[in-house]
Amino acid sequence: MIGAPSVAAVDWGTTRLRVWLLDAGGNVLGERRGDDGLITAREKGFAAVLEHHLAELGAPLALPVVMCGMAGSRQGWVEAPYVDTPAPITAILEGAVRVAGTARDIRIVPGLAQRTAGFPDVMRGEETQLAGAGLSTSGRHLVCMPGTHSKWVEVEDGVVASFGTWPTGELYSVLGAHSILRHSLGENPASVAADGPFFRDWCLSALNEGGDITSSLFAIRAAGLLHDLKAGDAAACLSGLLIGGEIASARRRYRHTSAPVVLIVSGSLGKLYAAALRIAGIRVTEIDADLAVRSGLFEAARQNGMIASKGATA
Amino acid sequence: MIGAPSVAAVDWGTTRLRVWLLDAGGNVLGERRGDDGLITAREKGFAAVLEHHLAELGAPLALPVVMCGMAGSRQGWVEAPYVDTPAPITAILEGAVRVAGTARDIRIVPGLAQRTAGFPDVMRGEETQLAGAGLSTSGRHLVCMPGTHSKWVEVEDGVVASFGTWPTGELYSVLGAHSILRHSLGENPASVAADGPFFRDWCLSALNEGGDITSSLFAIRAAGLLHDLKAGDAAACLSGLLIGGEIASARRRYRHTSAPVVLIVSGSLGKLYAAALRIAGIRVTEIDADLAVRSGLFEAARQNGMIASKGATA
Repeated sequence: MIGAPSVAAVDWGTTRLRVWLLDAGGNVLGERRGDDGLITAREKGFAAVLEHHLAELGAPLALPVVMCGMAGSRQGWVEAPYVDTPAPITAILEGAVRVAGTARDIRIVPGLAQRTAGFPDVMRGEETQLAGAGLSTSGRHLVCMPGTHSKWVEVEDGVVASFGTWPTGELYSVLGAHSILRHSLGENPASVAADGPFFRDWCLSALNEGGDITSSLFAIRAAGLLHDLKAGDAAACLSGLLIGGEIASARRRYRHTSAPVVLIVSGSLGKLYAAALRIAGIRVTEIDADLAVRSGLFEAARQNGMIASKGATA
Repeated sequence: MIGAPSVAAVDWGTTRLRVWLLDAGGNVLGERRGDDGLITAREKGFAAVLEHHLAELGAPLALPVVMCGMAGSRQGWVEAPYVDTPAPITAILEGAVRVAGTARDIRIVPGLAQRTAGFPDVMRGEETQLAGAGLSTSGRHLVCMPGTHSKWVEVEDGVVASFGTWPTGELYSVLGAHSILRHSLGENPASVAADGPFFRDWCLSALNEGGDITSSLFAIRAAGLLHDLKAGDAAACLSGLLIGGEIASARRRYRHTSAPVVLIVSGSLGKLYAAALRIAGIRVTEIDADLAVRSGLFEAARQNGMIASKGATA
């Protein structure tokens, strides 16, 4: 049974924003997606952008809002502190920060920071996906969340032990637009097919090189000059090289674990990562990223007392 | 003894150009450097740019001109063909191509292409540096020519056996200007000191990671957020990571050779590479890149019969 809206859930990233109206059971009553992410919101004002989307969804004026992502960064609306690793997943969402000076109850979920183990690292938004992914609270999981800045997370008995960032999506767009490879990929790089031979071959090559991608980037350009490689195929080469390189690199870092990879992703990017992980011979469990982040935001609203609990919270 | 000019030697790259007036003995009578490389020359016209520089140097109207670099590319003045590997170094310079429709005798040295062994690859300009480096024609050499697109070349008994490209300089500028690291490095990245701790530490880290740089790029940003890493130090981190990564990757590719590295480079970039190779424990012989390319161009002029030979040509 679908009820009245209990909370609005917002995933506010650097370049895009998603808003859902949820009832007390977490059911979706309405949804909006916009490209007014952090960059746009810094110009137009966070409150104005949010209220516009809520009004379009017909949200009541008193409806509370829970959000995650870059809205909580230093360049965002209100800086939400980081929770440090090692961090129990159920504890991350508890400390949502209230946005002051708004009529609504608006709270932003903390990010995660790794200050000591391995490389320094941060995440904002993926911790909420992780909390909503429904991982069992016992055993080891290796979680991959692909994107502009792909995150790999080691979870042990419900605790985030460590994580890392591979800026694969950003490398793809920056190299395609601003490096010599722009001559190879062309103005509007074609979408890449997960089952094409160029994606597969360059993915395999990157896996064999152990995550070293710099030695073969220029070969995409040279293959255009010497072997007449077409723009669409060049895009597949670059995509295969970068995704294969990310997987090889992560496999090296997490070689001590034999856990299958939990892939939290949506859409066409998911097909590329699933194919690349198969090529690497890695077992994969797939979880939809949209479902996961919505579920995590709903859980955050409950843990922060923003909606009436329908049962025991974790 | 300094004589009258016998030839003008031109190294015409993507972003810059250098012109020398040389006498019959290869002595320098005049020099000009400009930032009117390929990109500018395509707008203003190659002949106009060249004649301007020659006029400023007071070059006679009949003086022949020998050139190497991107002026011979498909986007250049006249496309000079590639010589395929394996290629005897002394044979590369022979086939200089005449620019048609000019009063002067203007010729462009061919580039090198690798069509079969390993990754497809091309070079234009570095083959002339190589020819002018004075390598002995017996034994094995591993040559490193740092730059926007660093080249590593395996030379066996005077023959280019294979080569590879690492786009280290381009990655540094593109990531510093267009990726999230622009927030870390700032508007005008500081010049990097070869003896600083950040350059050394990140170089070491990249060497230990075997050339995998993607796993630690984002850590530069995170170190700014979590540990207040300063802009100048972030530039040193990125430089150390990329140069160390290039060396680790090249060392893996050329692990079958025990030859010391011949480093052909000029200026501050040379200090960074020399330091990084020392950190990697690699023996280095340094050769000045400006001297090498000028010497190679002079040799090309002799081999193509553009000036009277003072002795036996190779």
